[in-house]
Amino acid sequence: MNEKTTEELEKLRDLIDGVDQQLLHLLRKRLDLVAQVGAVKHSAGLPIYAPEREAAMLAKRRAEAETMGIQPQLIEDVLRRLMRESYLNEKDVGFKQVKEQLGKIVIIGGKGQLGQLFAHMFSLSGYDVHLLDKNDWHMAESLFDGAGLVLVTVPISVTCELIQEKLTKLSEHCILADLTSVKAAPLEAMLAAHKGPVVGLHPMFGPDVGSFAKQVVVVCHGRNAEAYGWLLEQIKIWGARLVEAEAVKHDKAMQLVQAMRHFSTFVYGLNLCREHADMQSLLQFSSPIYRLELAMVGRLFAQSPELYADIIFAQKGSLKAISDYLANYSEALTVLESGDREEFIRRFREVAQWFGELAPQFQHESRAMLQSVNDLKSH
Amino acid sequence: MNEKTTEELEKLRDLIDGVDQQLLHLLRKRLDLVAQVGAVKHSAGLPIYAPEREAAMLAKRRAEAETMGIQPQLIEDVLRRLMRESYLNEKDVGFKQVKEQLGKIVIIGGKGQLGQLFAHMFSLSGYDVHLLDKNDWHMAESLFDGAGLVLVTVPISVTCELIQEKLTKLSEHCILADLTSVKAAPLEAMLAAHKGPVVGLHPMFGPDVGSFAKQVVVVCHGRNAEAYGWLLEQIKIWGARLVEAEAVKHDKAMQLVQAMRHFSTFVYGLNLCREHADMQSLLQFSSPIYRLELAMVGRLFAQSPELYADIIFAQKGSLKAISDYLANYSEALTVLESGDREEFIRRFREVAQWFGELAPQFQHESRAMLQSVNDLKSH
Repeated sequence: MNEKTTEELEKLRDLIDGVDQQLLHLLRKRLDLVAQVGAVKHSAGLPIYAPEREAAMLAKRRAEAETMGIQPQLIEDVLRRLMRESYLNEKDVGFKQVKEQLGKIVIIGGKGQLGQLFAHMFSLSGYDVHLLDKNDWHMAESLFDGAGLVLVTVPISVTCELIQEKLTKLSEHCILADLTSVKAAPLEAMLAAHKGPVVGLHPMFGPDVGSFAKQVVVVCHGRNAEAYGWLLEQIKIWGARLVEAEAVKHDKAMQLVQAMRHFSTFVYGLNLCREHADMQSLLQFSSPIYRLELAMVGRLFAQSPELYADIIFAQKGSLKAISDYLANYSEALTVLESGDREEFIRRFREVAQWFGELAPQFQHESRAMLQSVNDLKSH
Repeated sequence: MNEKTTEELEKLRDLIDGVDQQLLHLLRKRLDLVAQVGAVKHSAGLPIYAPEREAAMLAKRRAEAETMGIQPQLIEDVLRRLMRESYLNEKDVGFKQVKEQLGKIVIIGGKGQLGQLFAHMFSLSGYDVHLLDKNDWHMAESLFDGAGLVLVTVPISVTCELIQEKLTKLSEHCILADLTSVKAAPLEAMLAAHKGPVVGLHPMFGPDVGSFAKQVVVVCHGRNAEAYGWLLEQIKIWGARLVEAEAVKHDKAMQLVQAMRHFSTFVYGLNLCREHADMQSLLQFSSPIYRLELAMVGRLFAQSPELYADIIFAQKGSLKAISDYLANYSEALTVLESGDREEFIRRFREVAQWFGELAPQFQHESRAMLQSVNDLKSH
């Protein structure tokens, strides 16, 4: 590099440094303004996530960007990242308390990760939260006395038994709810054990989400919905989207969404281990899509084996979903072994047709994801 | 919402609008400055992607953010997104031509997607690019006359045959290279057919990447490396990272990275189709991680069945990798069927131990990815 080039580059980089300083100040200012919006919403009890308002704002910015010769997607991506930050901050401001004079909220299994997250959110919203862990049952009677909500979030393998044995004497005014990732059996157990309002909830996210904004919580109605309307409203204020579902339909979907996928991912890791795969060389050769896949597999093994065992062993139907996948795999392999390229292509087309419009939509969506993943790369 | 709240929110939103205007102007300014850096680099022949410089700049910004009470990750994410945009723009500026007076570049299969991408990049760098498609072989002799580089990018199933039959009469000064996703057999075929410089390349990305920046290209050396040094240099200037590998080792890794994974993904789609999965309800229940997975599956079926058939049928060894996976799946299923939760947990721990430090690293990495995916959600 000659001296002139070095000098020119230095000068330009100084200018870029200056722009970045201004950028930091603008980010600070925007975060502060959105925090003020959050405070106003907080006192008015409005949800922190307003999809229509967000979409309208983004459409406006995209149009403005276009007139300035900026790719609309750029400003949208930057603003979405900023909004995420604001949601994260908003969490610390606190939330409006929808139901005053509820009495205590008792979270059974409250020392687990998900229990702690809900305990935190309820506390931020001004409720009187008490935890009941497995060693605290001698205090159960006094804890339940005056409780307005008892929330069960214990391992799936013990949920129903615990409900049947320990939760038969709650006051009829108390709401009984659970956060289990299967819904039919716990809901049935709650309805049998308790005479008051009952609702089943399944938060479709891990306890490591920074904010409830945009996350999904599945709601399976049990009994006396008007009594727990405030609870659903409260969760919406935290930013989540509620999806109502029949327990049985939910559980069926979970066999594919959770049990089959977790099991396949587990076997993928097991397979890499058994094949003595050279991870360093795999990573070296990895395109973004494969790095993402490896990360998704590795992620599983950084978590609790008991949690995954619970999810996979929870439903009898899961075994069928897993066996069906094996049967399809096995059958497709025979096509491969016979070297019948045309048959493989025929099946490929059959599936593509079944996906229909979703396939190109997913391709579009995944491109955006892969670009984000590529942005993260620094070596 | 009462009037006062509405008024307050309106006022704050006007202020946010103002900040966003300034933000757009700053983005425009930064893109222009980086384009100027690109122009200087272009004339000096410097690579557009400078990892150390990028890392140093980000470290500085993170520190500055911290003193202003801004999460360092926020400014890093915003700047990475901006850098991506700059890389995309830089592509249109053109690139320094490393090798002048090379003569023609002939791309065999140049009308395929990957061939077109390389043709585009070579043209942007000032080379004289000619395409040779399957119907152009009557003109081959005149096209090859005076060619400095012949680049093969045809379907895997015909690559070796084409090299053996059609590329035996190139000038000894001409470089012969290929872009096939397997490397040992094509490299061998090129070395046998041609007496001059030979190099095998495998771009580890799809033709839909917007820029070469940060992408990986695997290099398998053939013969007379000093003669094609300029080619590797040129690819680096486009922004890619070169990874040198032995052809056999590369192919072995690809059995896991490509064949096994593509096949599993294919079966995943096939399985959803055969189970008559209700995609709308699956999507409704989807957490970001599962939406991402579904998108990765759907993405496959939006692409060419022939391409995937080629990749999967290309290597004999792939069949073994695929069978091994099936065997592990099948064996793990017997653990499930026996209801032996403890045995499942024992194996889970075995794999977790094998992943070692990578598991938490992947968990950390995937969290960032999942957050980006969640940012995209708008319903």
